[in-house]
Amino acid sequence: MTMTRSLRLKKNADRRLKAGHLWLYSNEIDMAVTPIKDIEAGEQVVVEAANGKAMGVAYVNPHSLICARLVSRDPKQGLDRSLLVHRLNQALALRQRLFDKPFYRLVHGEGDLLPGLIVDRYGDVVVLQLNTAGMQAVVDELLDALDKVLSPRVVVLRNDTSGRRLEGLESTIEVVKGELAEPVLMEENGVRFSAPVLDGQKTGWFFDHRANRAWLNGLVAGKRVLDLFSYVGGWGVQAAANGASEVLCVDSSSAALERVAENAALNGLQERVAVGEGDAFEVLAALKAEDEVFDVVILDPPAFIRKRKDIPGGERAYSKLNREAMRLLGRDGLLLSASCSMHLAPERLIDVVRGAVRHQDRQGQLIFQGHQGPDHPVHPAIPETAYLKALGVRVFRD
Amino acid sequence: MTMTRSLRLKKNADRRLKAGHLWLYSNEIDMAVTPIKDIEAGEQVVVEAANGKAMGVAYVNPHSLICARLVSRDPKQGLDRSLLVHRLNQALALRQRLFDKPFYRLVHGEGDLLPGLIVDRYGDVVVLQLNTAGMQAVVDELLDALDKVLSPRVVVLRNDTSGRRLEGLESTIEVVKGELAEPVLMEENGVRFSAPVLDGQKTGWFFDHRANRAWLNGLVAGKRVLDLFSYVGGWGVQAAANGASEVLCVDSSSAALERVAENAALNGLQERVAVGEGDAFEVLAALKAEDEVFDVVILDPPAFIRKRKDIPGGERAYSKLNREAMRLLGRDGLLLSASCSMHLAPERLIDVVRGAVRHQDRQGQLIFQGHQGPDHPVHPAIPETAYLKALGVRVFRD
Repeated sequence: MTMTRSLRLKKNADRRLKAGHLWLYSNEIDMAVTPIKDIEAGEQVVVEAANGKAMGVAYVNPHSLICARLVSRDPKQGLDRSLLVHRLNQALALRQRLFDKPFYRLVHGEGDLLPGLIVDRYGDVVVLQLNTAGMQAVVDELLDALDKVLSPRVVVLRNDTSGRRLEGLESTIEVVKGELAEPVLMEENGVRFSAPVLDGQKTGWFFDHRANRAWLNGLVAGKRVLDLFSYVGGWGVQAAANGASEVLCVDSSSAALERVAENAALNGLQERVAVGEGDAFEVLAALKAEDEVFDVVILDPPAFIRKRKDIPGGERAYSKLNREAMRLLGRDGLLLSASCSMHLAPERLIDVVRGAVRHQDRQGQLIFQGHQGPDHPVHPAIPETAYLKALGVRVFRD
Repeated sequence: MTMTRSLRLKKNADRRLKAGHLWLYSNEIDMAVTPIKDIEAGEQVVVEAANGKAMGVAYVNPHSLICARLVSRDPKQGLDRSLLVHRLNQALALRQRLFDKPFYRLVHGEGDLLPGLIVDRYGDVVVLQLNTAGMQAVVDELLDALDKVLSPRVVVLRNDTSGRRLEGLESTIEVVKGELAEPVLMEENGVRFSAPVLDGQKTGWFFDHRANRAWLNGLVAGKRVLDLFSYVGGWGVQAAANGASEVLCVDSSSAALERVAENAALNGLQERVAVGEGDAFEVLAALKAEDEVFDVVILDPPAFIRKRKDIPGGERAYSKLNREAMRLLGRDGLLLSASCSMHLAPERLIDVVRGAVRHQDRQGQLIFQGHQGPDHPVHPAIPETAYLKALGVRVFRD
């Protein structure tokens, strides 16, 4: 693969790349030497330092704030079928070492040196998200490489992400290989689920909380559990499978709650898993009005902070949620408080919990700090690849 | 228990306490109203806000930078036998929920609302550290309360900590109840160990890495493992027990290495656990000179940063260590890089690893971020109670 054009950096703008990062911002390009507007969205170029030294290959989107992402540190090696095969094999080797069943995130974008690409694997069904013009431009090579490495029976493109809109890409959901006749069954921490890969959130399942759920599973036997923002029951059904006496899954989506019931039944747990439809804050207020008490409350809300400017409002929302949820905990309760907002720093979530504990005039002990699972590797030079937090907090009266 | 004296805070100096913190610094006291030099080290006083409102009870050390630590938010309830029994019971309830065997940290100081107190439990042997004058002042009530709650056969005071020196307390090691005739046997993650409670580091064992070791144990089967700063073999012997083909434990203490061998033998693993005595950096250089290669390297060094002023030098030491250790990793290796320095922020350790990866011109994936185990609860208002980090990093060539 030959790159015909190059992108020249301003002086010192190579520092981040040298430190290991993969992103370039448009204000770092020397537009006089290499006007980025001449480059097509998705095109691969040689990145040059201010002194002209070639640093590697990046794909470009001139319309995006992150205007280029490095795909290789070898200026002669672009992102082609052979590099895609190599990177997919590297990603697969890690997951095969980590897990004994084929249900996991196979590719976590930059964390697997494949910027803009998500691949989730449900056995012989794989679901892809191509979130950048650069990744979209190599979709044929990618599907080809995936066939070579994994030979999946079914391939789904869940290309309906908000990231694609920002990149100027169309929003589509397509089955591009095979047929999806049956429900997609998978397993997490020994519990069976059906994942709605075509019409669920993201690719259908959130693999990222696997280890955090495993931790909580060890502490729910005999407990009454509230799972707020339950989606299809990842936390709640696993709690029931691990001996929780009673689980209430709450979500605003009736479709999600139907799947909670199906997933409970799949494990013979329908007697112990109830569902409640409604807005989380309204349900919390209603449960409090009825003097309901839980031993364990799980808070796994959608991202309240999507952009930097949402931080103050988002932090207030997390605070309110944690405060209200804590009111439902019994004398010696356990709160699992999660956030998937990349912009919420781990220590800020701890502070949210601290404030909620004090507001109730209770005591809190932070006994667990969880992160995204190992199939969502963090790139050590790219803090943006770390987004998930899960705190386990014992809440008691002194 | 009646507190005869009080400690008056300056205006706004009550904010930290109100937020949940337990510490007072000497510059926060209104010395004109309540001169702290009149108060004896270890005495309990009523803490008053600037307006005179009583906020709770604290014990005092006028000679310490942290001049008082809150023991109760009820101004009438000091730290006496009954409160000690209550707090010990609360601490025990948490551990009994967490663990099915009686080997754990029972009391983690401020994290268990017992400032200055460490209690580690090895079955019917408990080892205490009383790190403040205030805790030392109630030693009789404490031993009494411990008898009531746990009735241990043997009680050891490992009062030889650096914290005591700062508090003006003597350094002693005493068996104050029962007799220590036999080795103290314990179990972690299903592997048996003998803990040197009288002459080992701290109380003899580091319970804080239990969950981090459990994580690593799942990834060592068939691997060649280097355990640097091995102490008595917590990591290395567990790796061998979990199928590592070969383990080399390195420590500068021959006494520690003798115990590694004993612990390996205790589990029938003597064939697979070798020991090497020496300075870690020198051993790393020697291993490199001999072209030795490992699949897994464990770095669990002592705290390189003990005080804020040591941060720059300490970070350089962590960087050098991670860089040198990474050179010994094979093509697709795993680095477990830990730090117990409270002053090293988690994101700084990630940056240390990032720098080491780049220095070797390799790629890194952060697949695990571990913290201290749940028997070392973090007080959500006291960041100082969180100190342990353990990163799992896949290191490979692209």
